[in-house]
Amino acid sequence: MTVTLETIRAAARTIAGEVMRTPCLPAPKLSALTGAEVFVKYENLQVTNAFKERGALVKLTALAPEDRRRGVIAMSAGNHAQAVAYHAGRLDIPATIVMPEPTPFVKVAATRGYGARVVLAGETLADAHGEAERIAAAEGLVWVHPYDDPAIVSGQGTIALELLEDQPDLDVLVIPVGGGGLIAGIATAAKALRPDIEIVGVEAALYPSMRAALDGTPAHCGGATLAEGIAVKNVGTLTLEIARALVDDILLVDEDQIERAVDAYLSLQKTMAEGAGAAGLAALMAHPGRFAGRRVGLVLCGGNIDPRLLSSIMVRGLARAGRMLSIRITTPDRPGVLGDISTLVGRLGGNILEVSHHRLFLHVPAKGTTLDVTMETHDRAHADAIMAALEARDYSVQELDLGESNL
Amino acid sequence: MTVTLETIRAAARTIAGEVMRTPCLPAPKLSALTGAEVFVKYENLQVTNAFKERGALVKLTALAPEDRRRGVIAMSAGNHAQAVAYHAGRLDIPATIVMPEPTPFVKVAATRGYGARVVLAGETLADAHGEAERIAAAEGLVWVHPYDDPAIVSGQGTIALELLEDQPDLDVLVIPVGGGGLIAGIATAAKALRPDIEIVGVEAALYPSMRAALDGTPAHCGGATLAEGIAVKNVGTLTLEIARALVDDILLVDEDQIERAVDAYLSLQKTMAEGAGAAGLAALMAHPGRFAGRRVGLVLCGGNIDPRLLSSIMVRGLARAGRMLSIRITTPDRPGVLGDISTLVGRLGGNILEVSHHRLFLHVPAKGTTLDVTMETHDRAHADAIMAALEARDYSVQELDLGESNL
Repeated sequence: MTVTLETIRAAARTIAGEVMRTPCLPAPKLSALTGAEVFVKYENLQVTNAFKERGALVKLTALAPEDRRRGVIAMSAGNHAQAVAYHAGRLDIPATIVMPEPTPFVKVAATRGYGARVVLAGETLADAHGEAERIAAAEGLVWVHPYDDPAIVSGQGTIALELLEDQPDLDVLVIPVGGGGLIAGIATAAKALRPDIEIVGVEAALYPSMRAALDGTPAHCGGATLAEGIAVKNVGTLTLEIARALVDDILLVDEDQIERAVDAYLSLQKTMAEGAGAAGLAALMAHPGRFAGRRVGLVLCGGNIDPRLLSSIMVRGLARAGRMLSIRITTPDRPGVLGDISTLVGRLGGNILEVSHHRLFLHVPAKGTTLDVTMETHDRAHADAIMAALEARDYSVQELDLGESNL
Repeated sequence: MTVTLETIRAAARTIAGEVMRTPCLPAPKLSALTGAEVFVKYENLQVTNAFKERGALVKLTALAPEDRRRGVIAMSAGNHAQAVAYHAGRLDIPATIVMPEPTPFVKVAATRGYGARVVLAGETLADAHGEAERIAAAEGLVWVHPYDDPAIVSGQGTIALELLEDQPDLDVLVIPVGGGGLIAGIATAAKALRPDIEIVGVEAALYPSMRAALDGTPAHCGGATLAEGIAVKNVGTLTLEIARALVDDILLVDEDQIERAVDAYLSLQKTMAEGAGAAGLAALMAHPGRFAGRRVGLVLCGGNIDPRLLSSIMVRGLARAGRMLSIRITTPDRPGVLGDISTLVGRLGGNILEVSHHRLFLHVPAKGTTLDVTMETHDRAHADAIMAALEARDYSVQELDLGESNL
C-alpha cells in the first residue's frame, strides 16, 4: 500500500465524526505581523490537542480483528502517545504506550487516563524504543509508528482536504516537519488537488533531519528545543520518499523565532501553540519576504505546552516589547533612597512589581546596596525614559535581563 | 425601531464577510469537566478578540452620510472601544474614544492603532462618561452606546443565528451579562427560532445588576473582578426589557469560579478567555447539576486578558492541582541542611524550582533560618508525601500559599 489522494479520501471517511473537523480561519493580526495573508487550521482543538489522532484512528480502524484483540503498542513521550491511547480506548483495543522514564508526569497521567498501559523505560527515546520492540515481540502487539506508515500518513493527509475545502485558493502551505508524517500526507493530497500549490516544510534548526536527508548530507541534531514535538533525528523512509517528490522547500527556524511565534499565537490570536505547533508561523516571521502578499495556510498542529513554560514565554514577550523593565541600581544604603526612586518611577507612569535589595555580594560597596526593581512600562521608549530620568538624578542604573530579576 | 428576528437577520447580512463567522465546536474535555455536553463559540478569534465588533459594525453602517462625515464617539476602556475604533477606521468614519485615565496603556495604544482619537478623561468610567457627553454635544458626534441601542443588540444577536445554524439542537445557551446587549440579541434570535431553548445569563457576583433589575431589588455592585468586561452597574433600558421577556434565569459566579474557568479554557481547550469570556463556563462548573447531560452552548465572548494576569492564573492553577508546592522549613542555620532537604525532595521526584533563605525576621530563631522551597510535584498526593517525608526527618514544614512564595 502506498499513499494517494484515494487513500487519504478513504481516511477522511474513516475519521468523519470521530475526529474533529477543525476550522481553518483567517488570522488578520498574524497577517499584519508577517505581511502574508495568513489562515490558521486549529488542530489544537482536537480532544488530545494535536493532529495525531487522525493517523492513529485510521491505523487502529484498519487492524484485523485478531490484531485488535491482541492490542497495539506505541513509543512516544508526546502527542502520538495520547492519540493512540485515546482512540484505542474508544475502540476497546488494548494499548501499551512506552515512554522514557523522564517523561513529565502529567503526560504519563493523561495517557493512563485514556485507559492505556504505560510502561516507563530508559532514559532516552532510543532506550524506550528498544524496550517497546521487546514488548511488542514478546506479546505479539501491533506496532503503531508515529509517522512511517501509509495508514498514519493517509490520516494526517485529511488535513489538506479540509484546508482546501475551506480555503480553496491558498498559494502555499507551511507545515512543521518532525518525522515527516504530517507533511507527507498533506503534500500528497494538496498537490493532487492543486498541482500549483507550494508545500514548504519547517524544522527546528537544532533538528534539521528532513532537510539533511533531502540534501543527502549528514544531519547534526541535538539540543534542547521548545519544539520537542518535531525534534526527530531520523525521518521516515516513506515520508522521505514523498517529501522528495512533493515538498518544494524546507526552512529552519531557531529557538528565538519559535518562542516569538508561540507568543504571537497567544497574544494576537488568543490560542495556545506548543513549539512545534508554532513552527509554521515562526517561518513566516523569520522569512517575511518569502511569503509577502501570498495566501498562506498554517497548521497549528498541537497545543500541548507546559503551563510554566508558557507563562515564562508570555512574561519574556512583555520584556521584549519593552512592557516589563528590570533594572539594578547601586546606591548608598540609607533611608529614603527607595522612596525617592519609587516616587520618580511612579510619577513617570512605571508600575513597580517587585523590589529586592542585595547587600552581601562583594561587587556591592560595603556601605552600599544594590536595588533590583522590576516594573511595568508602556513600551521601549517609556522604559528608556525612566532609566534616563533615574540617571539624571545620579543613580547608577543597569538594565537586567528579566532572567536575572526575581520575577 | 425595536429588536426582532428580522433586524437580526438584516444585521447578519450587513456584517457578512466583514466580521468573522466564528466556529462553534464541541469541547469534549469541558464536557467531561462539567457533565454537560459543551459547545463553544469562539468569539475571541475576532480581529479585536471579542464579539463587540458585530454590534459596532451594524451601528456604524446604519449612520446617515452626514453623521458618518461628522463622526462617532464612544466611551469604553475595553472591547467596545477597540471594536468601534477598528470598524470606524475601516469605514473611514472619524471616531473618538473616551477612556478613563487609568486605562492600561496597551488598550490605549491598540485603540489609537486603529486610527481613533483617544481622549483620556477622569478617574472612573462615570467621569469619562461625563467628558464624552460634553465632547459629543460640542462636536455633534453620534453616540455609539456599548449595549442600549437596537442596532447594537441586533448585531450581537447574529451570534445566535450562527450558533443554531452550526448546532441546531442545543438545549440551553449560557451567556455572560454585562449591560445586557449580548444576551438581549441572542435571546431574541434564539427564542424566535427555537421557542423551547433555555437562555441563562451569567453575571459576576460582584456586579449582579441584571439579576437585581429583574428582581426589582437594589443591586450591590463593586469590587475588583477578573471579569471587568461584565462589571456593569446599570443595565440598559432596552436590554432589561428584552431580558425580562426572554431570559429564563440569571446565575452569579464568584471570582474563584471565574478564575478556574479561565484556567480550564487554557489548560483543557488551549484557548484564551478573559474573565467575562469565561463566565459561562464558570456557571457550568459552579452549577453542574443544573446542566448535567444537556447540550449547552457557551459564547467565549472575549479573549483580552492581561498576559501577567493570565500567567499568574496558570501558575495558581498548577498549585491548586497540587502540581506546584511551596513550603517553609525552619531549620538550624548550619551547612548541609539544604543538601539534605533537596536530596530528599529530588529522590521523591519533586523538581525544585526556587529556594530562598530568611534569617532576619523575628519569627526565625536567632541561630536558625527559614528556607522557602518551591517545587513541581505530580499531584496533591505526591505533594503530601514529600511534606510527610520531610517531617519524618524532623524538619518543621509549613505549606505556603503560592502568593507567599517568591515565585
